[in-house]
Amino acid sequence: MPISHVGHAELLVPDLAASTAFFTEMLGLQVSEETPGRVYLRAWQDWDHHTLLLTESEEPGLDHLGWRVPTKRDAEELRTALEHSGIESTWVDGGDELGHGDALQFTTPGGLPFELYWAVSQYEAPPDQRSRMASHPSKIPARGAAPRRFDHVTFMVNDVVAEKEFLTDVLGIRHNYYIYGPDSTRWGSWLSCNNVSHETAVTRNAYGSGGRLHHIAYYADTADEVLRTATLLVDHGYELEWGPGKHGTSGATFLYFKEPSGNRVEIWTGGMLIFAPDWKAIEWAPEIGALGNSMWGTPLPESFRDGTELGTRAAVAS
Amino acid sequence: MPISHVGHAELLVPDLAASTAFFTEMLGLQVSEETPGRVYLRAWQDWDHHTLLLTESEEPGLDHLGWRVPTKRDAEELRTALEHSGIESTWVDGGDELGHGDALQFTTPGGLPFELYWAVSQYEAPPDQRSRMASHPSKIPARGAAPRRFDHVTFMVNDVVAEKEFLTDVLGIRHNYYIYGPDSTRWGSWLSCNNVSHETAVTRNAYGSGGRLHHIAYYADTADEVLRTATLLVDHGYELEWGPGKHGTSGATFLYFKEPSGNRVEIWTGGMLIFAPDWKAIEWAPEIGALGNSMWGTPLPESFRDGTELGTRAAVAS
Amino acid sequence: MPISHVGHAELLVPDLAASTAFFTEMLGLQVSEETPGRVYLRAWQDWDHHTLLLTESEEPGLDHLGWRVPTKRDAEELRTALEHSGIESTWVDGGDELGHGDALQFTTPGGLPFELYWAVSQYEAPPDQRSRMASHPSKIPARGAAPRRFDHVTFMVNDVVAEKEFLTDVLGIRHNYYIYGPDSTRWGSWLSCNNVSHETAVTRNAYGSGGRLHHIAYYADTADEVLRTATLLVDHGYELEWGPGKHGTSGATFLYFKEPSGNRVEIWTGGMLIFAPDWKAIEWAPEIGALGNSMWGTPLPESFRDGTELGTRAAVAS
Amino acid sequence: MPISHVGHAELLVPDLAASTAFFTEMLGLQVSEETPGRVYLRAWQDWDHHTLLLTESEEPGLDHLGWRVPTKRDAEELRTALEHSGIESTWVDGGDELGHGDALQFTTPGGLPFELYWAVSQYEAPPDQRSRMASHPSKIPARGAAPRRFDHVTFMVNDVVAEKEFLTDVLGIRHNYYIYGPDSTRWGSWLSCNNVSHETAVTRNAYGSGGRLHHIAYYADTADEVLRTATLLVDHGYELEWGPGKHGTSGATFLYFKEPSGNRVEIWTGGMLIFAPDWKAIEWAPEIGALGNSMWGTPLPESFRDGTELGTRAAVAS
Repeated sequence: MPISHVGHAELLVPDLAASTAFFTEMLGLQVSEETPGRVYLRAWQDWDHHTLLLTESEEPGLDHLGWRVPTKRDAEELRTALEHSGIESTWVDGGDELGHGDALQFTTPGGLPFELYWAVSQYEAPPDQRSRMASHPSKIPARGAAPRRFDHVTFMVNDVVAEKEFLTDVLGIRHNYYIYGPDSTRWGSWLSCNNVSHETAVTRNAYGSGGRLHHIAYYADTADEVLRTATLLVDHGYELEWGPGKHGTSGATFLYFKEPSGNRVEIWTGGMLIFAPDWKAIEWAPEIGALGNSMWGTPLPESFRDGTELGTRAAVAS
Repeated sequence: MPISHVGHAELLVPDLAASTAFFTEMLGLQVSEETPGRVYLRAWQDWDHHTLLLTESEEPGLDHLGWRVPTKRDAEELRTALEHSGIESTWVDGGDELGHGDALQFTTPGGLPFELYWAVSQYEAPPDQRSRMASHPSKIPARGAAPRRFDHVTFMVNDVVAEKEFLTDVLGIRHNYYIYGPDSTRWGSWLSCNNVSHETAVTRNAYGSGGRLHHIAYYADTADEVLRTATLLVDHGYELEWGPGKHGTSGATFLYFKEPSGNRVEIWTGGMLIFAPDWKAIEWAPEIGALGNSMWGTPLPESFRDGTELGTRAAVAS
Repeated sequence: MPISHVGHAELLVPDLAASTAFFTEMLGLQVSEETPGRVYLRAWQDWDHHTLLLTESEEPGLDHLGWRVPTKRDAEELRTALEHSGIESTWVDGGDELGHGDALQFTTPGGLPFELYWAVSQYEAPPDQRSRMASHPSKIPARGAAPRRFDHVTFMVNDVVAEKEFLTDVLGIRHNYYIYGPDSTRWGSWLSCNNVSHETAVTRNAYGSGGRLHHIAYYADTADEVLRTATLLVDHGYELEWGPGKHGTSGATFLYFKEPSGNRVEIWTGGMLIFAPDWKAIEWAPEIGALGNSMWGTPLPESFRDGTELGTRAAVAS
Repeated sequence: MPISHVGHAELLVPDLAASTAFFTEMLGLQVSEETPGRVYLRAWQDWDHHTLLLTESEEPGLDHLGWRVPTKRDAEELRTALEHSGIESTWVDGGDELGHGDALQFTTPGGLPFELYWAVSQYEAPPDQRSRMASHPSKIPARGAAPRRFDHVTFMVNDVVAEKEFLTDVLGIRHNYYIYGPDSTRWGSWLSCNNVSHETAVTRNAYGSGGRLHHIAYYADTADEVLRTATLLVDHGYELEWGPGKHGTSGATFLYFKEPSGNRVEIWTGGMLIFAPDWKAIEWAPEIGALGNSMWGTPLPESFRDGTELGTRAAVAS
């Protein structure tokens, strides 16, 4: 698979100050850099300059999701593959976003704004954030949820099956598992470039309103830390949307909530890794789809069908 | 407070074999003794002969809940107090139930079948179940949920306030916290004889059908073990009813489900202990009652309004 | 038992600023009040004004340990019992320490500086620290270890058996368990006034240098939070002394370390509660004493034999 | 990297019955098949026929470690690479071990008995072990530690640096991190073919006695489950060797002990995954090597320098 891993997301936030305070104080992310209207964030074991970029914007949403490829050649080869599929792509200058070099941007058939990049700046902690641990690019914050690392980004699309095929056939991302609803429609497909259970997923937009951001996710170390995050958020006046619960598919323990600008965030942990070189995507048939979604049966709220906008920052900028 | 602690429950089970298998294999309780139609069970750190007695019966329910008092004199003094309240009580011969001596049985105004007893037999583990640990009356089972100890029993009654007053004023059990529903009716009151957040509770019977058993509860060591119990139960084909979730009142992590005979069981852990000698019951006003019930917002299922019968074994026997 | 519970400790700290920063930033305690040379602290579910008072002093140590009795009459009755044992006691004006009223102070035969008090001020959170949860006297801090409550204080004495007898026979504190060393000397005795496994303990001073503070302890909600505390402390440059490990006696998961002024602190969780009204102290015989101390076998460091001074603030003041 | 993942280990056990009982009852592995003198085992989410083969033998040790390659062609290409390095390899008939097809066996310069294989049989659960969860090849056992999957195998060799170079340069396994001892000797190097922190490691044989098995490891879902395993093992009469503790390198929570035949086993969880396509192995310099080994400082026992034999079953068989 030419893509190495999902690398960073640019989230659009109407209330930059409130979103920054939430991600740092409540979730325990760290600011690596700030420019006017933008805050770069990372979790404590994210090695790169940032994994989350908050950009002030009129509406909440995701500007783009960045995928790291090993070399520029990999991006060029994927560009050719995209062209063969009729997808236009654009070279973007590295100066547009701190922390990585030039990138290739394109929009998938389902409307997902993706970016491929290869050169990255490693995060350099300021002296008071340096850890004795050679495995810690910065100290674990004694503050908030403090997840370990950026994990995945999930979308909604009108046609799950078609989008899944684009992701596997053109981008070479492996299909790991998929769920059918009780009416035998495809609820979603989960995919990754490597051993993790998913780095992205495409789920059904029940309203047929096209591509939307469903959520971004950070990885916590233990299920107990997910519970602790739930308790902290409620005690500090935030509302939880779904969870703590357990996905039957991945086996991960999950918690979903909205950050102050309205984008959905997940803190999750644990579950399945995939090692088989001949992995065949697991089917969750209509009879067990609900178990795949929610193993413990924690009811899915109606609000979970909503998402935020995609690619709007670029639209405004152009 | 003359009562020391809640001590044991006699549960009525139409399917004794299935219930016994569930409590031992899935929940990891241990059989201390069996007689025809009856199985005596305990958790690994329950010091007494048993904390749960399963008795074969036509309908599920609770025959009685046993409270331990320090001495016979305490039972006699409580008998006098009961008489002053117009409650009849009966001395029961110790031979009726293994593991403890004579008892005083009575039914509360709300219909709860209680028993006071003072003399107990300590559990003696068979050689293969003896632990090197002096604090373990038997080895921790390498099987099922394996909670540490018996914890509490919760009831439904028609009149929560009146029943709470009987429990505090006549039996001397401390009122620890109470919840109002959104319509300002009292949802429930939680009480204990000692430092734990509750040993019993009386909650509102929404159907007005009188006293019912709501659930019995065992105490697990960590929230992670509650999650593990949820996962094991679902994977072995059982349904969960509510949870894992967190009670805002006690701060405990909970999980509710039905045992095969139809009685509700809770595995829970953690939360508040109460030490103040002048404790004033915490009020959960209508606006925050839902948070008191379910801090994380895990929705309460409609089925949670149901309970099983009370005192039916004794009725059959007489 | 006339004493209700262990209530607060006054810790002597040469470096008040560093100790305060450690207790608030790393351990997640909250400052309830400050006066020159003194900082009052509490955990988030400590209902009283404070449970820890840091007082600037030349040497580390414990000025006194406070035990709450229900009423002044209980203190007076204990004063009589102390007199019969030849122990002098002194009435102390409530103005000496914020948050509680008058107190009776005395030194046990083993040299432990105790105080009995009855009237307390409840903690009132400032508006930004108020929780929606009626069971939270303040929000759970999104910072540091954030244990739930003050738990216990452990001492070293020359003669464990004699001191244990004073605590049980004169003060009416229940003896819960005791450990023998391999040479059949008594290593320690653990005691409480209520259901918890211990509120104080007296352990053998191997150097025969008299009464010393061994450690103060706060209670965390889960074993996972104890591990998280260990990881945070090491990552922020602190040294752990012993643990994470598990006491066989109580079944609690423990972690010991020194605060910046040199006093030992424990964060622990879980384990046994004691309910039996006829509890007989558990003996850990010489062959299993090491298991009682350290169930998993985590080796006890030599430094664990050391403690800090007792009662020195009062000595300086007089 | 042509190798997909570490796949299975054949462990040599003098007491097959005791080892089988331990792995099934205490560790919660499942028997997938038995033949005379051999028991095939797997964890509940191991998809292949087995991940551990116990073979009766005079001495404890490891017969071989199996690595899965995608296709036979990958094995052939690696065979050529081995030849260029002067390493002989042998084609082994699939009939020698159930559950996988033909294999290529060879011994590394440091003496490690490796096997490459490509075709595998997927595990088929008997009806009573089938789970409703499509992601569970069998139910999670309600028994023992019940780790999720096979994780890694660690060796001791005389020359860590040379062996590391063979593993990276000839077999194409990525070097992830390495530790120096206080005297600047290389303590060990940890490597993997994919995102996990290590699938194998070579550590220094302090006695210079050549290649040895250090331990095999299974992966548990949470740190709490590692603690639970420690408690269960001690309560059932087993000795722990090291831990629970935390490796600073990987960030994983660990527990080491011996199975009844004398081979060392680890249950571990959590920690770092590696995603960067240009990962540079992390150096743990002499000053911080001890933190890399034991972040919390849990002392390393002297016995940890010992290992068991390698490749002895083949030697006996030939």
